[in-house]
Amino acid sequence: MLSTMQDVPLTVSRILRHGSTVHSGSTVTTWTGVPGQAPVRRTFGEVGARAAQLAHALGDELGVDGDQRVATLMWNNAEHMEAYLAIPSMGAVLHTLNLRLPADQLAWIVNHAADRVIIVNGSLVPLLAPLLPQLPTVEHVVVSGPGDLTPLAGCAARVHDYEELIAGRPVAYDWPEVDERDAAALCYTSGTTGDPKGVAYSHRSIYLHSMQVNSAEAFALGAADLLLPVVPMFHVNAWGTPHASFMAGTSMLMPDRFLQPAPLAEMIETVRPTIAAAVPTIFQGLLAELDARPRDVSSLRSVVIGGAACPPALMRAFQERHGLRVIHAWGMTETSPLGTVAHPPAGVSEEEAWGYRATQGRFPASVEARLAAPGGGFQPWDGESAGELEVRGPWIAGAYFGGAAEEPFRPDDKFSEDGWLRTGDVGTISPDGFLTLTDRAKDVIKSGGEWISSVDLENHLMGHPDVAEAAVVAVPDEKWGERPLATVVLKEGATAGYPELRAFLAERVARWQLPERWALIPAVPKTSVGKFDKKVIRRQYAEGDLDVTDVTDATE
Amino acid sequence: MLSTMQDVPLTVSRILRHGSTVHSGSTVTTWTGVPGQAPVRRTFGEVGARAAQLAHALGDELGVDGDQRVATLMWNNAEHMEAYLAIPSMGAVLHTLNLRLPADQLAWIVNHAADRVIIVNGSLVPLLAPLLPQLPTVEHVVVSGPGDLTPLAGCAARVHDYEELIAGRPVAYDWPEVDERDAAALCYTSGTTGDPKGVAYSHRSIYLHSMQVNSAEAFALGAADLLLPVVPMFHVNAWGTPHASFMAGTSMLMPDRFLQPAPLAEMIETVRPTIAAAVPTIFQGLLAELDARPRDVSSLRSVVIGGAACPPALMRAFQERHGLRVIHAWGMTETSPLGTVAHPPAGVSEEEAWGYRATQGRFPASVEARLAAPGGGFQPWDGESAGELEVRGPWIAGAYFGGAAEEPFRPDDKFSEDGWLRTGDVGTISPDGFLTLTDRAKDVIKSGGEWISSVDLENHLMGHPDVAEAAVVAVPDEKWGERPLATVVLKEGATAGYPELRAFLAERVARWQLPERWALIPAVPKTSVGKFDKKVIRRQYAEGDLDVTDVTDATE
Repeated sequence: MLSTMQDVPLTVSRILRHGSTVHSGSTVTTWTGVPGQAPVRRTFGEVGARAAQLAHALGDELGVDGDQRVATLMWNNAEHMEAYLAIPSMGAVLHTLNLRLPADQLAWIVNHAADRVIIVNGSLVPLLAPLLPQLPTVEHVVVSGPGDLTPLAGCAARVHDYEELIAGRPVAYDWPEVDERDAAALCYTSGTTGDPKGVAYSHRSIYLHSMQVNSAEAFALGAADLLLPVVPMFHVNAWGTPHASFMAGTSMLMPDRFLQPAPLAEMIETVRPTIAAAVPTIFQGLLAELDARPRDVSSLRSVVIGGAACPPALMRAFQERHGLRVIHAWGMTETSPLGTVAHPPAGVSEEEAWGYRATQGRFPASVEARLAAPGGGFQPWDGESAGELEVRGPWIAGAYFGGAAEEPFRPDDKFSEDGWLRTGDVGTISPDGFLTLTDRAKDVIKSGGEWISSVDLENHLMGHPDVAEAAVVAVPDEKWGERPLATVVLKEGATAGYPELRAFLAERVARWQLPERWALIPAVPKTSVGKFDKKVIRRQYAEGDLDVTDVTDATE
Repeated sequence: MLSTMQDVPLTVSRILRHGSTVHSGSTVTTWTGVPGQAPVRRTFGEVGARAAQLAHALGDELGVDGDQRVATLMWNNAEHMEAYLAIPSMGAVLHTLNLRLPADQLAWIVNHAADRVIIVNGSLVPLLAPLLPQLPTVEHVVVSGPGDLTPLAGCAARVHDYEELIAGRPVAYDWPEVDERDAAALCYTSGTTGDPKGVAYSHRSIYLHSMQVNSAEAFALGAADLLLPVVPMFHVNAWGTPHASFMAGTSMLMPDRFLQPAPLAEMIETVRPTIAAAVPTIFQGLLAELDARPRDVSSLRSVVIGGAACPPALMRAFQERHGLRVIHAWGMTETSPLGTVAHPPAGVSEEEAWGYRATQGRFPASVEARLAAPGGGFQPWDGESAGELEVRGPWIAGAYFGGAAEEPFRPDDKFSEDGWLRTGDVGTISPDGFLTLTDRAKDVIKSGGEWISSVDLENHLMGHPDVAEAAVVAVPDEKWGERPLATVVLKEGATAGYPELRAFLAERVARWQLPERWALIPAVPKTSVGKFDKKVIRRQYAEGDLDVTDVTDATE
């Protein structure tokens, strides 16, 4: 039986229309970083009008048509917000470029997406200009904000000034009614292996995700809020907060390129946001800044931390030293990114609440979850049985963008046969739906149908007073498939032997998880960003470059 | 360009699965009204298991198949919640019957919907039993809770006990994946004229509406909340709050049939809900009860009032005398019902905030609004220009249910040519998107392409010290189309004449709105529920039964 409800699509243009009318008085404030100069403030009404002008400019002047890609290489600012609204609303696809990527990856991504236009902040022209000769699809470069344009001299693309381009154009646009399942925005994951992979968000997924961000169980954004999105708009759409804010009438404080602790502290004290969102490292820096030079940050009711696991000590320090409540959240590019949010349940003690806050959080209704068991099937939600997290939902990717002329593709290691996303994260789910992640799937040791957490073993080993660093990797084993190899860096002058370290572990983990293979190494190999580089250890082991000792209990 | 997101339908079964797993520990508590007896508490996990049992019973035992209608004639209780989840999730259509309707309307509605099963509370058997001989489609009556079953003796339908029917059946159900645009629930409007009209909510509309109810700009329901839905579950699905609560993990306190002020006050003090929802009359009674016999109602962070305009004095009294913040909301059966919610904007003074709270509220992103101007076209949002409110959105009706074998129908007076719902309400919208309703469209006076608010004129007239009551109706006018006729009831012994009353009005409304036709009457005719019955006045005028005096200014 058909319902009698109206069939109205969930689109970004609806968010634009709503925000710029019902919430026309809400504001987007961009920090200029110029001492003594007030930040630039625009109302949602003005942002909406300028978004219409931008759409006219892109369509009428630059010939953007259909679902062509318009890229942004921009900081968080009002002009980026205008692009966020205008490009999807006109039916084109917003492609946010991650300005922190290596140049060759950036060029690969632009070419893969076949971007026709790039809107770039003036301060980022030096980053873009050298790439342009490798970007044959890019016909137009639109420069927003001050910057040195000399590097663009002689480039094949036409160069425009953002303000000149939109000036004088109509401040209204008859936004087309697109199919809610059409692509609205494109974002590439920057995997450490293989080519970057594009996730094409739909109007529907952005709309539903925005509603979820504004729900009480997520960030509860409302018209009385002022959001500081420190997380970049090129990083999973700043976690969806700009679209969500425009939907809820939440004003925004845009930090532009001033992401260092001192200006962040200053803008919080001056403009008084009520909620902020950032990755842990940025907040670690902000904490040190606030500890050193106290500021009034009492306007913040919450700070959302995601993108990487937040150290519980950081959460506690913010709360205890600065009265800031941290909301821990988990997600990834493929999940739009809202996957879980860690609000403690009602009626628990303060200490229990801290336990819940340290988890990745609880799933909202639109994110269905299951834990693939190492031996096949699925694990129970008992808070103990670990499995690879798989998720399903209307804002979860079901494939990757194949490029301008290609079909989307679904690699088996990323998607299950029945279409769920394999997150590559291993963890447990408690009976009340809280997710705790322990490992990346590639870092667990698959031993006889069970999984052993390398991270868990490492953390225990590094708790031994003689151990400076420890890295545990899976190595092939005839009987069990894989077994753990423990590589250990001892502190200077420390003398602990393998049996002692193994006995130390035996008190802390199940017997079948204890490594039999041990090697002392001078230092754990690291990647360029300082993470353990386990590929190197596995290779060293395979090539016989490690001095491995077999250690088992006499009683075994 | 197609997005790469998963295509996952928004369905009630997803709400059911989510609530009964992630929030399995949340609870539905039903008030029993038995002194000294604890209310009956069930976890969401138990409710989910019982919903599965109910679905098995309906399908396997009673043969409910496809999109057949299963009706409920029930109070707010846990069993009704089970029906709310099980019936749509199995692909059937939940039809909530309004137990306050006259018997003939109730029978008409059951027959129009072709209900196959009716689940009825034992206490309501005396209401249902006499109707059964007129209900040929009803094959099964399922009785839940204690009651006298004698009236059902000899009825043609098979009679079942709810608990016996579901007992022992499997506690899991392989819910089918239905199309999100299929009907999930059916609710009839009880219009004062014509046959009742059915609105068939879709899975999609219920899902999106639930997300909106849980947003910060609506009621912000979360897992830490305990909701008291006083508004009946047969009244626009208790404003969508049961499904929204199950989605958010919000526990519920169900009042069953104990809707009188004293038990409500007692259950609030005892079970300590954090938020309640009810129509103004119920809360008027609760206020009197609390004033007379103070109770601890401090657990309530908010009370949502809708269904009829809430007198500002009632809001203030709750806040000032009992510390309860009232949230005013507007909607109708055709709008699921969430149309507007009156949260004052940030940064206004306390007195300004009261002004905003007294409006119908602000539109959420999914409800698009426009004001049809009396002369055609649409009114600006200036807070002054009045028009008939038309709305559009994914949880707004676009037609009415035509009955089991009929196509949906779209009467012109209810839907615009381009598919918007004509609400029949007249009002203004402020530049910041706040709706103020002043009249029903049928009560405004359409004078020379402008609208005159009869309610506005009446309120001003009743502000005159000599006036006891006043009713203003539209009467035909050769020059202007319609003009206002003011009928006035003077207080005993009062002597004010028409010129004085007209001069009093002239200080308060625009000159062109002043009535020229006046009549003194002994009392304003009333309907059975005490509302002004303007049909009678219009008929008396047409038939020359009123003693009408023409009054104009000497200067005109």
